[in-house]
Amino acid sequence: MQITIEQTAERLKENNDFLLLTHMSPDGDTLGSAHALCRILQALGKNARVLTEGKIPKKFEYLSCAVTEQSFDEKYIVAIDIADEGLFPASAAQYKGRVDLCIDHHISNTHYSSEYCVENDAAACAEIVFKVIKALKADIDRTVANCLFTGLTTDTGCFRYSNVTKQTMNTAAQLIEIGCDSYMINKRMFEMNSKQRVAVEQMALESLRYYDGDKIAVMCVTLDMIKKSGVDEGELEGLAAIPRTIEGVAVGITVRQKKENVYKVSVRSDESVCCANKLCAIFGGGGHAAAGGCIFKDEPLELVIERLVKAAQDVLEPQER
Amino acid sequence: MQITIEQTAERLKENNDFLLLTHMSPDGDTLGSAHALCRILQALGKNARVLTEGKIPKKFEYLSCAVTEQSFDEKYIVAIDIADEGLFPASAAQYKGRVDLCIDHHISNTHYSSEYCVENDAAACAEIVFKVIKALKADIDRTVANCLFTGLTTDTGCFRYSNVTKQTMNTAAQLIEIGCDSYMINKRMFEMNSKQRVAVEQMALESLRYYDGDKIAVMCVTLDMIKKSGVDEGELEGLAAIPRTIEGVAVGITVRQKKENVYKVSVRSDESVCCANKLCAIFGGGGHAAAGGCIFKDEPLELVIERLVKAAQDVLEPQER
Repeated sequence: MQITIEQTAERLKENNDFLLLTHMSPDGDTLGSAHALCRILQALGKNARVLTEGKIPKKFEYLSCAVTEQSFDEKYIVAIDIADEGLFPASAAQYKGRVDLCIDHHISNTHYSSEYCVENDAAACAEIVFKVIKALKADIDRTVANCLFTGLTTDTGCFRYSNVTKQTMNTAAQLIEIGCDSYMINKRMFEMNSKQRVAVEQMALESLRYYDGDKIAVMCVTLDMIKKSGVDEGELEGLAAIPRTIEGVAVGITVRQKKENVYKVSVRSDESVCCANKLCAIFGGGGHAAAGGCIFKDEPLELVIERLVKAAQDVLEPQER
Repeated sequence: MQITIEQTAERLKENNDFLLLTHMSPDGDTLGSAHALCRILQALGKNARVLTEGKIPKKFEYLSCAVTEQSFDEKYIVAIDIADEGLFPASAAQYKGRVDLCIDHHISNTHYSSEYCVENDAAACAEIVFKVIKALKADIDRTVANCLFTGLTTDTGCFRYSNVTKQTMNTAAQLIEIGCDSYMINKRMFEMNSKQRVAVEQMALESLRYYDGDKIAVMCVTLDMIKKSGVDEGELEGLAAIPRTIEGVAVGITVRQKKENVYKVSVRSDESVCCANKLCAIFGGGGHAAAGGCIFKDEPLELVIERLVKAAQDVLEPQER
């Protein structure tokens, strides 16, 4: 059942021993939002911890300092920024069907939890968590502000995507007023790249292929590239945005190899088409109009690309008639 | 004399036949702020026009649609975002010593005008113009909002620089609420790369070489790469920044071939070394601590790189003892 911000705050006040789940291939929003909420809950005297997919990626390591490690038997399970149980990391498999509360901003949220606070108009889950924390009347310190700002800026490509609203900017303004280090965070998120990340980007760019008069671009990130470059899995975030930033490209597709014949696909679409979720739904995935994802199993790369391009052409075509 | 936002609004109400000056090599802030104010003045029934250095750059062409061309004898001269008369474009030379009002945010403003409204804490001049327009109680439509947003986002590197404050974000929030097309503007300003630009970047990245435990990185852009990618010379700007953004790199060097055996070298150095100008001076070039340049003639690429790396090592070494 959908509940309000105030009801969400009530649930957090009433309960204890919180386990905060983050999604697989964690990004700045799931991690930033979960760590912000965890710190607030701990400050309110509650037991709380964040469950991540393995070790937190190096880029986001500073977030982990926001919380204190606590050991306890979890009693109340909260999913943060997770649209569907299919996006749970392996470490959270046991919590499927057991989530008490979900805080999320994805339009594709499948309402798998007992209660949920889903606001589709939020550019980042961090915007919703910010409102929940306000409703809790808890003190937002610089550390919490840094966590939330990380979510805001990463899910909006540094306030660049079309999902940015007045609320996004107002939230950022308040976090900056509190003293969050927006400059350091943006530099870390968007400017600094490891030698390995640069190497894998070069290889991925080399794989770029264009279709339909350059309206569709496909980029690949293979296990071989990952191995050759020595890049950390966590550093691959952001690569998926590249194809769509090329002039004239309406649908940008990034195919990332997870295992032999297993591919995680990210689709980004232009405001002129807005079809990322539609396209991904064809292959059992989801997302929102501008960005979506799906997974291919047991198919070779060339076939995956062929099917995606065909589907993208089909989605693009009717709009041109 | 420094005057307040309210006094600035008063001057605009009292006067007519406005000429709004923008600075040489115009950027989004001088152009956006001037066009916003010009549209407002025209809407208030005044005569107003913007004076630019030649034709408005293509990237900013949409700003010119904000105003109506008007022909009149200018009576009140306003300089927008111009710190000093030395930054007047040639087209504005005749107005030196004759500026009635300057609206600016540069700490280096030399107070050359009769009256000035200079606020150093504003990240962009557009923040100040926004306040002036509010004080005028004029209606801010989408077009004005687009002009002001252009100023805001370009002068902050898309809200990324350390100059961003709560006021910057709040102004952006209000402009988004009015309906400015922040997505289109940011995309136009920061995201769009041509297919050719992406191709040449891939080739340049492939050429990256590291020295001295990765503290020095050298990237090449050859005539061959330019030809193969089909990139326009004007699109190569920005490439030179890449090597220095790699983690651990203190000196980033980009060698761009101009002709057979003629190389234009760009050096960027980290805040920990600050030696770009020192390094370039060795080869007859110059610049400032963070960024410098020099030219090599009649030497093959490999020798150019060898000499640059040797010099960079010499510049780095004493700092490590």
